[in-house]
Amino acid sequence: MLIIDCHGHYTTAPTAQQKFRDAQLAKVKDSSLPDPQQAHISDDEICESIEKNQLKLQRERGADITIFSPRASAMGHHLGDEAISAAWTRASNDLIKRVVDLYPNNFIGVCQLPQSPGVPIKNSVYELERCVKELGFIGCNLNPDPSGGHWKSPPLTDKHWYPFYEKMVELDVPAMIHVSASCNPNFHATGAHYINADTTAFMQFIEGDLFKDFPSLRFIIPHGGGAVPYHWGRYRGLADMLKRPLLGQHVMKNVFFDTCVYHQPGIDLLVEVIDIDNILFGSEMVGAVRGIDPETGHYFDDTKRYIDALQIRAEDKRRIYELNTRRVFPRLDAVLKARGL
Amino acid sequence: MLIIDCHGHYTTAPTAQQKFRDAQLAKVKDSSLPDPQQAHISDDEICESIEKNQLKLQRERGADITIFSPRASAMGHHLGDEAISAAWTRASNDLIKRVVDLYPNNFIGVCQLPQSPGVPIKNSVYELERCVKELGFIGCNLNPDPSGGHWKSPPLTDKHWYPFYEKMVELDVPAMIHVSASCNPNFHATGAHYINADTTAFMQFIEGDLFKDFPSLRFIIPHGGGAVPYHWGRYRGLADMLKRPLLGQHVMKNVFFDTCVYHQPGIDLLVEVIDIDNILFGSEMVGAVRGIDPETGHYFDDTKRYIDALQIRAEDKRRIYELNTRRVFPRLDAVLKARGL
Repeated sequence: MLIIDCHGHYTTAPTAQQKFRDAQLAKVKDSSLPDPQQAHISDDEICESIEKNQLKLQRERGADITIFSPRASAMGHHLGDEAISAAWTRASNDLIKRVVDLYPNNFIGVCQLPQSPGVPIKNSVYELERCVKELGFIGCNLNPDPSGGHWKSPPLTDKHWYPFYEKMVELDVPAMIHVSASCNPNFHATGAHYINADTTAFMQFIEGDLFKDFPSLRFIIPHGGGAVPYHWGRYRGLADMLKRPLLGQHVMKNVFFDTCVYHQPGIDLLVEVIDIDNILFGSEMVGAVRGIDPETGHYFDDTKRYIDALQIRAEDKRRIYELNTRRVFPRLDAVLKARGL
Repeated sequence: MLIIDCHGHYTTAPTAQQKFRDAQLAKVKDSSLPDPQQAHISDDEICESIEKNQLKLQRERGADITIFSPRASAMGHHLGDEAISAAWTRASNDLIKRVVDLYPNNFIGVCQLPQSPGVPIKNSVYELERCVKELGFIGCNLNPDPSGGHWKSPPLTDKHWYPFYEKMVELDVPAMIHVSASCNPNFHATGAHYINADTTAFMQFIEGDLFKDFPSLRFIIPHGGGAVPYHWGRYRGLADMLKRPLLGQHVMKNVFFDTCVYHQPGIDLLVEVIDIDNILFGSEMVGAVRGIDPETGHYFDDTKRYIDALQIRAEDKRRIYELNTRRVFPRLDAVLKARGL
C-alpha cells in the first residue's frame, strides 16, 4: 500500500523566494522602485528546506508521496493586480517543479492559479495548462475568494467559473478548493477563513446544479470538509428542504474531503458519517498547526496516526491512503503505474 | 429535571408581522409610500401560531421551557438604516413579550438588537436595557456581522463592542452570537453564514483577550459551536502556536455551545471533546431544518433524542438540559426559583 498525502504545501521555501515577493509588493506601493528580480535559489537550498521539513516528516510518519503545492496562505491573490499575481504564481509553481524534479519519488505538483479580484477565471486557464502539460502537475488549488476574506466573487456554481472547469475536465485534473490569507480582520486565515471557505463551498454545491453540467468535475474540500461532517445532518436536511437530490447523488460523486482534522474524535466522526470513497488522506504539513498535542504527545498534524488508529478494515484504510487519491487524480495514477506502483 | 431549550426562534409569527416589515422595507425604496402601520395581531393569532408549532413540538419532544427570540434570519440588520432596524427590532421584541405573557411557563424572552451597519453598538444598549428591565428578558442575540455576509464590523474582541459588553455585565445577561440573513450570494444563511459566524467568533476569542477585560461576560455560540468541536485539535493547536493560554482557561470559562447539531454522530463528538459544563441543550426549532431524517424516521432538529441517547451519567444530562443554562442565564434561574423550580 502506498501512503499518498494529498495536501502538502511548500511552507518552508527558501527566504529568497519571499524576498522576491516582498520586492514585488513593495513596487506595488512605490512604482519608482526597481523591477523585482526573480529569486536565485540553489538546489542545495531547496534540498535543505525540504529534507529538514517535509521529507523528514514524510519519513518519520511513514508517507510515501505528497501532492505538493505552493504555500496557500502566501498565494495572496488579493495583493497587487493580475500581472503581480501572474508573476508570483509562475515563480511559485516553478519552484514546486524544482522540488518535484529533485525528489520525484516523494513529491508531485499541484499548482497555484494567477487569480486576482474581479479578473475572469478564464485568465487562469493558461497557467493550469502550462503546469499540467509542461510541468507534469496533476491538479490545482482553486481560490473561491481571491478578494481575501471579502467574498466578492460569484459562488463556485456560477457560470463565471465554467471556462476554468471546462479546462479541468479536458485535462482530467481535480481542484482543491483552497483560499489564501485573509485581509479581513474578522477572519483568522487558518482558524476561520480556511474552514469557512470549505463549509461555504459545500453549501454552494448543494444549492447549485454544477455537477449536472460537469459530471466528471472533481473537487477536494480540504480541512476535513470544514464544518460539513460535524453538521452532516444539517446538510442532509437542508438538501431535503431545498428539494435537492440526496447528497450521495447530488454532490458526493464529485466532492472529496481530506483528513486534515487534528484530533482523533474528529477523524472518527469523518469516517463515521462520510463514505470511505470520499475521504483522501492529507496532513497539510508542514502547515497550519505545527505543535505537539500535550494530550497525546504527538504532533497535531500527524494525521496518519488518527487513520491508523481507526477500527476499520485494512482495505478501507488503503482506499483512504491510496486508492481514492489515485482515482481523483488520474494523472497521479498514470505516473505511479508507469513506475510499476 | 427541567428541560430548557436555550435556542428557539419565533419563525412562525403571524403574517401581519411580516406585512409590517414588508411595508417598512418598501418605504425604504420608495419614500413616497405611507408610513408602515404596526401589525395588529390578536392573542388568538399568536396562540394559533405557537400552539401548532413550538408548543406542540415542546410537548411532543418533552421540553419544558424555551428561551425564545425573534426569527434570526429576519433580523435583517443590513436592510434599511438604523431607524428602520430600531422600529423592526422593537416590534419583534414586543411580539416575543406577548408570547411570553401568553405562555409564561413555556417561553422566556431573549431580544434582537437594533444593530445597523456602521452604527456604534452602544446605540443598541437602550433596547437591551428595555427588554431586560421592562420586558423581563434574560439575554440577547448579538450579530457579529450586521452587514449580512460582508463582515465589515470589527472583530468581537475589538473595543468597538465594549460599551455593549459593559451593559451585558451590568445586567448579568449573556448573548447568543447569531448572524441574520446573508445578502452575499456566496453564503447560504443557515447552511454557511450561520456556521461560519460561529467558527469565526470562536477564533476571534482565541486571538483576543476579551475575557481578561470582562471575566464575567458570557456568550453562547450556537449550532454546536460551528466547526469548532470537529476541529478541536486545530483550535487547541492554534492557541498553542499563537502563544495563547489553554482554551479551558482562555475561552471556555466564558463561551458555551448549544446542541443544534442534527445527527447523533455530531452530538456524540460535541460531548466527547467539549466539557459538559460548556454545553447547553438547544434545538433551534422551529428552525433551519424542518424535515424528517429518512435514516432515523425522526425530525432532524429533535435534538433531545440525540442527548437522550448519549451514554453519559444522568447528572451530566441534567447539566446539559438544565443546570448549565440556569448558570449562564442567571435571570432565568431567578425566575425559575421564584416559581419554586
